[in-house]
Amino acid sequence: MSDETAMMTEPAVSQNISNGSNGVVQALLTDLYQITMAYAYWKSGKMNDPSVFDLFFRKNPFHGEFTIFAGLEECIKLLKGFHFSKSDIEYLRTAMPPGTDPGFFDYLASLSAQDVTLEAVPEGEVVFPKVPLITITGPLPVVQLLETPLLNLVNYASLVATNAARFRMAAGPETVLLEFGLRRAQGPDGGLSASRYCYLGGFDGTSNVLAGKMFGIPVRGTHAHAFVTSFITLNDLQTRNLKSKDGSKEIDFVSLCLTYKKELSSVIDFLPDQTIEGELAAFISYACAFPDGFLALIDTYDVIRSGLPNFCTVAMALNDLGYKALGIRLDSGDLSYQSNVVRAKFVQIAAHYSLPWFERLTIVASNDINEDTIHSLNQQACNLCEVTSHTQPIIQGHTINCYGIGTHLVTCQKQPALGCVFKLVEVNKKPRIKLSEDVEKVSIPGRKKVYRLFGADGTALVDLLQEESEPAPEIGKRVLCRHPIQESKRAYVIPADVKLLHKVWWKDGQVGENLPSLTELREKTKLSLSAVRQDHKRALNPTPYKVSVSSSLYTFIHELWLESAPIGELS
Amino acid sequence: MSDETAMMTEPAVSQNISNGSNGVVQALLTDLYQITMAYAYWKSGKMNDPSVFDLFFRKNPFHGEFTIFAGLEECIKLLKGFHFSKSDIEYLRTAMPPGTDPGFFDYLASLSAQDVTLEAVPEGEVVFPKVPLITITGPLPVVQLLETPLLNLVNYASLVATNAARFRMAAGPETVLLEFGLRRAQGPDGGLSASRYCYLGGFDGTSNVLAGKMFGIPVRGTHAHAFVTSFITLNDLQTRNLKSKDGSKEIDFVSLCLTYKKELSSVIDFLPDQTIEGELAAFISYACAFPDGFLALIDTYDVIRSGLPNFCTVAMALNDLGYKALGIRLDSGDLSYQSNVVRAKFVQIAAHYSLPWFERLTIVASNDINEDTIHSLNQQACNLCEVTSHTQPIIQGHTINCYGIGTHLVTCQKQPALGCVFKLVEVNKKPRIKLSEDVEKVSIPGRKKVYRLFGADGTALVDLLQEESEPAPEIGKRVLCRHPIQESKRAYVIPADVKLLHKVWWKDGQVGENLPSLTELREKTKLSLSAVRQDHKRALNPTPYKVSVSSSLYTFIHELWLESAPIGELS
Repeated sequence: MSDETAMMTEPAVSQNISNGSNGVVQALLTDLYQITMAYAYWKSGKMNDPSVFDLFFRKNPFHGEFTIFAGLEECIKLLKGFHFSKSDIEYLRTAMPPGTDPGFFDYLASLSAQDVTLEAVPEGEVVFPKVPLITITGPLPVVQLLETPLLNLVNYASLVATNAARFRMAAGPETVLLEFGLRRAQGPDGGLSASRYCYLGGFDGTSNVLAGKMFGIPVRGTHAHAFVTSFITLNDLQTRNLKSKDGSKEIDFVSLCLTYKKELSSVIDFLPDQTIEGELAAFISYACAFPDGFLALIDTYDVIRSGLPNFCTVAMALNDLGYKALGIRLDSGDLSYQSNVVRAKFVQIAAHYSLPWFERLTIVASNDINEDTIHSLNQQACNLCEVTSHTQPIIQGHTINCYGIGTHLVTCQKQPALGCVFKLVEVNKKPRIKLSEDVEKVSIPGRKKVYRLFGADGTALVDLLQEESEPAPEIGKRVLCRHPIQESKRAYVIPADVKLLHKVWWKDGQVGENLPSLTELREKTKLSLSAVRQDHKRALNPTPYKVSVSSSLYTFIHELWLESAPIGELS
Repeated sequence: MSDETAMMTEPAVSQNISNGSNGVVQALLTDLYQITMAYAYWKSGKMNDPSVFDLFFRKNPFHGEFTIFAGLEECIKLLKGFHFSKSDIEYLRTAMPPGTDPGFFDYLASLSAQDVTLEAVPEGEVVFPKVPLITITGPLPVVQLLETPLLNLVNYASLVATNAARFRMAAGPETVLLEFGLRRAQGPDGGLSASRYCYLGGFDGTSNVLAGKMFGIPVRGTHAHAFVTSFITLNDLQTRNLKSKDGSKEIDFVSLCLTYKKELSSVIDFLPDQTIEGELAAFISYACAFPDGFLALIDTYDVIRSGLPNFCTVAMALNDLGYKALGIRLDSGDLSYQSNVVRAKFVQIAAHYSLPWFERLTIVASNDINEDTIHSLNQQACNLCEVTSHTQPIIQGHTINCYGIGTHLVTCQKQPALGCVFKLVEVNKKPRIKLSEDVEKVSIPGRKKVYRLFGADGTALVDLLQEESEPAPEIGKRVLCRHPIQESKRAYVIPADVKLLHKVWWKDGQVGENLPSLTELREKTKLSLSAVRQDHKRALNPTPYKVSVSSSLYTFIHELWLESAPIGELS
């Protein structure tokens, strides 16, 4: 393929990278009712009505009590590029009813987010139900048009970042977590979003190469079963030689492997004629390609009888040439049991050859892992350690030190959608409330400020929503925090620290704050989570974190509520 | 915003439309291990080894017994554009280990899908476990590189199309089904894929405007709660007048509405002072914008006391001017009960004013609907109809005739991933088998042909996989169909019709078949489903459809299996 052809799709890629988005976040990515409402607003002369909308969720995902806020950078970029192109307008002329006033399309074509202000919690912050993640101010139809793309950009990003953070907490800080979900995500961009926000939530890398290129996420991967089955005999190896790491010699690597295979059969007890020759050929091929990065998938045929002996064979041969193998991957079966058998053999080899690093080789597990699997593997480890500390290491739980996680991570199987909503809280300087028969669904009206109050130990005590005009809570001074709905639920809090949660990210057509890099967001997430008390974060029956309102806001909500709701009739 | 600025993002949109993809399907959208394997193949001199891979799934989703195959067009377009750009290669130089042979990057830069052949079941066809949906032939590293993007493109497309088809079967052919899932999908492209493949699976339209523009799907939508709450009094209406449909008169529409409100209060029994004035203002505004398309969301405050009376008020005023309202939308509460109350009031108005169309107004339901909700609503309707046919219509199930479905449709909550896999079945003309301790996971080796055998009534009886060299089954002639694994499961079938399932879609760098339009694919899906027996399609405990192999293929599988598996030791 010529260089010219190779350049053809370049612009699209560059654009994806330069705008940091996955490629299609544009004004038209919205629900039709946003356009029909815009038309009705325009027809009614309400196109310049100042409005305020809050974006928030009502319930944390995954039966948890916290959420990681993500997607903000994309929201800001949406505002930056917000406009309807000529071809959008042409299309909308066909999508709207024939009688639509042509002046409306000129109006649409003139729109931008110049007059919109976006305040939000910083990306990567831990957030809780009812707290406005984003508060957006501007002309009613413009802000309304932004509803769908903002929800689209925040909902999945925050959901999958939260899921990743939960996996991280389950696996502990030392275990390496890799995202392998591209093939199970909602199309190409679903996969890219997953890679990006899983990294933000605490994963260490991804298998998704494009995500690596676009977002700078470390990419990781070894080989598949097909690689192993594509080799049938050692004759498939066209090159038998490998140079030593120091370059001092080049030897017949295949012969060296065959020597080690024989020798190891008594060290770690396997039948040499039971190992699969094609698998050994595949491992040798892979080791020759990556002598410094040899990590083999050992379950294609039989972990114990073939995969593990073949791996150890090649790893020991590599060692003779000055290379240290990395480890193995398990992709089926009983991960706990297999990891222990494998580890035990590593320990035997380490002892026999006095190679202490061999017992610490990486064991990667990648078979349909979810958060509960990890908890359950951890649980086994703990219980068994206590009970059987004097017995064989082989029955002490698992010895996995890296998980490759796909389906359950990216699809968020436990709860595949975060229910963020976008509610009008003020129009023409009048507060608005969205009523509901379910009182938990009643929205908190008006412009608000959100503070996070911290205790002396640095952990978050409560989030407090206040009316905009109220003075900020002061450090060391008692403040009354009320439940937004339930009258009797109140508490005094004396904060050791107070943080105003929202910052202005977009105003007067300008990006208001420096946008952190993805790596900084990942650190931010870690830090923010560390300030949340353990009981809010635990996997089973976590304690709800309190989101409260000031006395004044409480009164305001309930007065407006009574004023807005029709009075029923008993009959 | 100037025209020049407006043109800035145009190229990206055009490209999305012109290549039919959602924008980012490129060679680099793959797992890193495909690249590392390619390197090892290249290093081992295996880069031209001819290989055959099958893409298939092992289990139908949603506890069902059928799947709709979708995503093929995108797969073909992936092949058409397959190459690594200069910047991809630059990135890969940084992602691969420092010692990587530079010649490999030249090799990568030279790759295309010129030598790849893709055979597949047509898009929109009903498919079953173990049947290769796609069989792809070509140089080992190239085909291996295609694994991840092909799985990515097929998995979610097929899953969501199947989900949509299930919703369609639950709702029946007459009910209008609209996809409203953009805000809950996996980012922008997740939303676009959802809209596209839900339409393929049998939905009637989407709220996603960009999907309308890109794929020609009908777009639908009305207004949100925020629209209603943004109006406070009738004074918010800057225009009070509306022209009649025939253009003969222009009247004070607000006054006409107020007259009707009073009159209707006795016809359908409500308290005029209990209706919310802002809601009436919002409905009037919307009706003035869309006099021919008036469909109102009536649950912002109180369906019975305010929303419904306000809707009927405006609908009757519109009627005076020659416009027929479309109906109402319910987005909360007991949908069955509310739909019946609403329908009963419509019936009363229809009778009172002799307007038969009024009783047939559309009732749209859009609150967190899933497949089971629809079955349950249907069930209520049937049972109650039988039992209470002589009582009030108000308790006879539901009278909804349109569903707007978001979260559960696009996230496929019941099962958010289809587990398609991509297995090597032949390399260098030698068949390969992937073994597994779970016999159901053993792959079917070698090149195969797949036939669907039909009975005299036109319904599909069985899918039959044969070795490539075997003659096709003949109409009217007995053929032995064997279970691929279980020896004793065999059946003779005399087909009334035989269809070869695969076609060649990509060969020698050319698209081999005309690609159908999305509308044609939607028809194809409907037709293909109609040839599947009802018992395979039913929601509860469906009968598994049989996928079988020929006698010759059976023997071949089992010989290769024994040959490939290590023999265990009893100890």
